[in-house]
Amino acid sequence: MEYDIAIIGGGPAGYNAAEKAAINGLKTVLFEKNAIGGVCLNEGCIPTKTLLYSAKLLDNMKGASKYGILEGEQAGFDLGKIISRKDKVVKKLTGGVKMKLTSSGVEIVEGVATLLGEKSDKIRISCNEVEYVVKYVLVCTGSDTIIPPIKGLADVAYWTSKEALEIKELPKSLVIIGGGVIGIEFASFFNSMGVKVTVIEMMPEILGAMDKETSAMLRKEYAKKGIDFHLNTKVTEVSPEGVTIEKDSKTSIINADRILLSVGRKANTDKVGLSNLSVEILRNGVRVNEYMQTSHPRVYACGDITGYSMLAHTAIRESDVAVNHILGIDDPMSYKAIPGVVYTNPEIAGIGKTEEELKATGSYYQVLKLPMAYSGRFVAENELGNGLCKLIIDEEAKIIGCHMLGNPASELITIAGMAIEQELTVDDFRKVVFPHPTVSEIIHESLFA
Amino acid sequence: MEYDIAIIGGGPAGYNAAEKAAINGLKTVLFEKNAIGGVCLNEGCIPTKTLLYSAKLLDNMKGASKYGILEGEQAGFDLGKIISRKDKVVKKLTGGVKMKLTSSGVEIVEGVATLLGEKSDKIRISCNEVEYVVKYVLVCTGSDTIIPPIKGLADVAYWTSKEALEIKELPKSLVIIGGGVIGIEFASFFNSMGVKVTVIEMMPEILGAMDKETSAMLRKEYAKKGIDFHLNTKVTEVSPEGVTIEKDSKTSIINADRILLSVGRKANTDKVGLSNLSVEILRNGVRVNEYMQTSHPRVYACGDITGYSMLAHTAIRESDVAVNHILGIDDPMSYKAIPGVVYTNPEIAGIGKTEEELKATGSYYQVLKLPMAYSGRFVAENELGNGLCKLIIDEEAKIIGCHMLGNPASELITIAGMAIEQELTVDDFRKVVFPHPTVSEIIHESLFA
Repeated sequence: MEYDIAIIGGGPAGYNAAEKAAINGLKTVLFEKNAIGGVCLNEGCIPTKTLLYSAKLLDNMKGASKYGILEGEQAGFDLGKIISRKDKVVKKLTGGVKMKLTSSGVEIVEGVATLLGEKSDKIRISCNEVEYVVKYVLVCTGSDTIIPPIKGLADVAYWTSKEALEIKELPKSLVIIGGGVIGIEFASFFNSMGVKVTVIEMMPEILGAMDKETSAMLRKEYAKKGIDFHLNTKVTEVSPEGVTIEKDSKTSIINADRILLSVGRKANTDKVGLSNLSVEILRNGVRVNEYMQTSHPRVYACGDITGYSMLAHTAIRESDVAVNHILGIDDPMSYKAIPGVVYTNPEIAGIGKTEEELKATGSYYQVLKLPMAYSGRFVAENELGNGLCKLIIDEEAKIIGCHMLGNPASELITIAGMAIEQELTVDDFRKVVFPHPTVSEIIHESLFA
Repeated sequence: MEYDIAIIGGGPAGYNAAEKAAINGLKTVLFEKNAIGGVCLNEGCIPTKTLLYSAKLLDNMKGASKYGILEGEQAGFDLGKIISRKDKVVKKLTGGVKMKLTSSGVEIVEGVATLLGEKSDKIRISCNEVEYVVKYVLVCTGSDTIIPPIKGLADVAYWTSKEALEIKELPKSLVIIGGGVIGIEFASFFNSMGVKVTVIEMMPEILGAMDKETSAMLRKEYAKKGIDFHLNTKVTEVSPEGVTIEKDSKTSIINADRILLSVGRKANTDKVGLSNLSVEILRNGVRVNEYMQTSHPRVYACGDITGYSMLAHTAIRESDVAVNHILGIDDPMSYKAIPGVVYTNPEIAGIGKTEEELKATGSYYQVLKLPMAYSGRFVAENELGNGLCKLIIDEEAKIIGCHMLGNPASELITIAGMAIEQELTVDDFRKVVFPHPTVSEIIHESLFA
């Protein structure tokens, strides 16, 4: 069977690319071995955010008396209902994606696709013992959870993020190995649900590449809520008795009813037959240019498989770029304003440069920052919590970064992203009128800090 | 006493201008007859949003079982505590503003200031029987609630928004005369608190100049929650027995335990002595140019007194423009992207052109719109409600308007505002990377609708 384009992998990059390609007149086939929507919709972004919203409601109820609302402290929860609602949300959204694909004219094939090689300027693919011949291929097979080589791991019943979303009952205690974004979001959820949570992180701070100042503030907030953090700490062994950790050459054991592994994800480069087309693969993922083209001019790669950004929204944008390039539209990828969000309560969001990055390269920068409490609406809606809004500007007073702690940072960060993308200076950005009273105003206020 | 600039009125325009003027080296005096912060901080935006947040918490608790959170339906409230928390928030924020003013070097004078006239290129002002001589004056005396000439009004104990914020107990039923933004926000609050609310609006739709489609959707949502709306309806008389209304030449009486008047606000142009400087006043307010300069070159006017926009954030931006003009910085006012927000639950927000405006002028436009349920996060966080995101583009595919129904529209609308201000086309705007999953993504999705 002949197609203009084959898309391998039905996650955010794949379903977005397939829809765009088909709408623009390309005969499009999409291969998915598991479930349309990929990790993001089925076992990542969407299910975690659904659980975290239930947790947030519970947090809000327990704290409601401060706002004059009574009996909230009586609140409880039904874990089965929380999980089944999550399943319902996932089903609704994956159903929506499938419908959009089908109505756009995309042919969806369920199965494992393998790149076989080339034949007279066409690329050959096999799936379910059928051969497909296509002009272009977009590979977006995503990433898998890294299972680190920790002694004893094979003998304990650990969770990855996937299993943690399917639980039937809560553990009494949970040790999370890896304090990156995924680990901390689960730490937040299980903490709200009353589980004793311990986070073990090798680095000096949680949340990987996020801004360190807001990350540390969040960590302290959760330490107050009862999470134990072990930074600069290595896990040397796990056993049914607990997790052995090492810090400053001292070892100790933490008891754990359950272990959650979240040390990172690795690009799925090895199962799709990229070598049959001699596609170049770097240490972390497939090498691509600014049009998401691999070393093979008719093979594109988007999303986690490039090992670069590992975020659904990056994947979506990359897939726009790839399809546009195939359509002859010049639309290079820019990573200048890619937001990163942690859906804890409160949320952290960041975009553009961090202080840590700029310090490392010795670049000039200046920070303009204010506590969130400078926003009237934040004060009206946050009795106890505080937060921070921090803008980073360069020597021409252009906005190059923004990092926020406080709800709803995830929804506000794009405002700063647009300023970065449009290369606005502080003076330009000051002219933008923010509605009063909103939390978003803190960005405007920070411009005068 | 001599100053570079006198600012009359300590609301958002006044306190913002005073701080900026003082920071930039102008010797600044600020006159306030009542309370620093003006209507906005003391009896408008901030107190209403504080009450509305308590109401939202209560709404969320009552609906929490849909998210697997239990016992929320038991929730009650303590009105005294809700009101006293509101007072505390107002006190904190006005205290913050006062501190910023004082630390910037602004001289604050409590009293009624009157413009007396000119003396050798200086303007004379009197306050508390002291004469002040200044080079520039910025008048921002705001607006007052309109008390319409309704028969019988003098004989009943009605509320305006001011009194509605200071209540000690809830009425059994409330008739709101005027279904504009203020009326509908109070309707929402009292509905959440269990009061039987009736809204009477003369026009065919609630919410004044806001987009009609989203306004109608919100109205229907609240009708389901028990609010009675009477559109195209005039109030002809009020009495202790009730409110007499007339619609299609038929009259009827609505019983009301209490009446809330919210038919609009009028600019305070007549008490400050503008005529002593021959400042030109139009029908709705003081006439100003794009630098907020009145017909007198050294008298500026900002905020509600111009009768133009009547929004705190407009006032703040206008006061930046005025101070910049005095400082010799060319920074004309633009009304192209002024957001309007209604803090109901769900919220409405709009910016730029409406369909109604464009139809009236016969301008070409196109609408790109999607239900909010196309946002995965919206689905994860809104079990029942729906909403709408609607972008308006012109013949060059530039974004010229955006109107949204759904939380947190107020926090998202600035994203669209920046696109309007930067004159982005649909293609430009598509390149902006929105974090996934957020409600804000609906704006991005709508660009492909």
